[in-house]
Amino acid sequence: MKLYDGGRAPNPRRARIFLAEKGIDVPLVPIDMGAMGHRSAEVTERNPIQRLPVLELDDGTVITESVAICRYFEELYPEPALFGRGALGKALVEMWQRRVELHLLACVAAAFRHIHPAMIEWEVPQIPEWGEANKPKALAFLDILDKHLENNAFIAGGDYSIADITGLVAIDFFKPARIQMPDHVTHVKRWHEAVSSRPSAKA
Amino acid sequence: MKLYDGGRAPNPRRARIFLAEKGIDVPLVPIDMGAMGHRSAEVTERNPIQRLPVLELDDGTVITESVAICRYFEELYPEPALFGRGALGKALVEMWQRRVELHLLACVAAAFRHIHPAMIEWEVPQIPEWGEANKPKALAFLDILDKHLENNAFIAGGDYSIADITGLVAIDFFKPARIQMPDHVTHVKRWHEAVSSRPSAKA
Repeated sequence: MKLYDGGRAPNPRRARIFLAEKGIDVPLVPIDMGAMGHRSAEVTERNPIQRLPVLELDDGTVITESVAICRYFEELYPEPALFGRGALGKALVEMWQRRVELHLLACVAAAFRHIHPAMIEWEVPQIPEWGEANKPKALAFLDILDKHLENNAFIAGGDYSIADITGLVAIDFFKPARIQMPDHVTHVKRWHEAVSSRPSAKA
Repeated sequence: MKLYDGGRAPNPRRARIFLAEKGIDVPLVPIDMGAMGHRSAEVTERNPIQRLPVLELDDGTVITESVAICRYFEELYPEPALFGRGALGKALVEMWQRRVELHLLACVAAAFRHIHPAMIEWEVPQIPEWGEANKPKALAFLDILDKHLENNAFIAGGDYSIADITGLVAIDFFKPARIQMPDHVTHVKRWHEAVSSRPSAKA
């Protein structure tokens, strides 16, 4: 199998961190998204939605969407469990993974895509007003997350999970999205230091 | 347990259709979203993100996010499987569920929230230009889906799944979002008739 990878963008990084946490080595096919490689024929014939990452199995079957790729490996290699354990545990990981994705990562991505000059060919039409509107949305969710992390080591509770991976790539994207991390979210900062210090964060 | 329900909005309906497909009966607590009931103290203390549906278990544990609620019931009552079977089957359901959610339902919802006059208190700031930009995005995905459904009975392949539920609520929301269903997507129309004729569609 091989993983068509998109470098520093949040979703490709999400899949790489997940694989590093699982200790799974998948050959990468680097795609230069800066040169619009995600819209090349090579990627488009595998993923008509033209997004990365894309996992291609040996029989040619394609799995796209970073979380779907992660779930494939979770099912094949259940340990360490990164999607939770038991009905309630799995539901709470899904809940937090979705909260962080929809109310943090999506907002940070929208701020980046709709404001950053480098994104003018990617996001058509670029609507800076929508990009700006997403910054306070991201910060409002950060306050909810901060309160939650006061009593939880990790985003979905006591154990590291895919929700932490989504949170990490979202917060590390504040800088290109030009969102300033507020000083008062001390629990988010403690958590961010902890997840950033894991070897997988370098993936 | 009880399910705080939001009536005709797509996400509450997603959970109700899922439960109907599973044959599970959960007492509903109706919340009037038209009267901003999702921002009441009753909902906010259970879900600080102020979205519906919200599942409350008998011990007070809260699960939010419609897909997380569905996954909870999938784990408790695996049949009929609505999140797929086996590593590849589960990954492909996740892939299609996410594709339909991110590239169809999210676009339809954005068109509705950013253009419809009734949404002016919900979506602050309302940015009609962003709402309009989402209509061609939804239609572009519909073409991809149409091509896929030419060779597949259901969205994730041969079996009905949560991806079909997300697709159904998205397409039924075209009307309030004032998006015209194009004539040429004949496979989407055949699929839409099939999923609409299931008893669960009335949930």
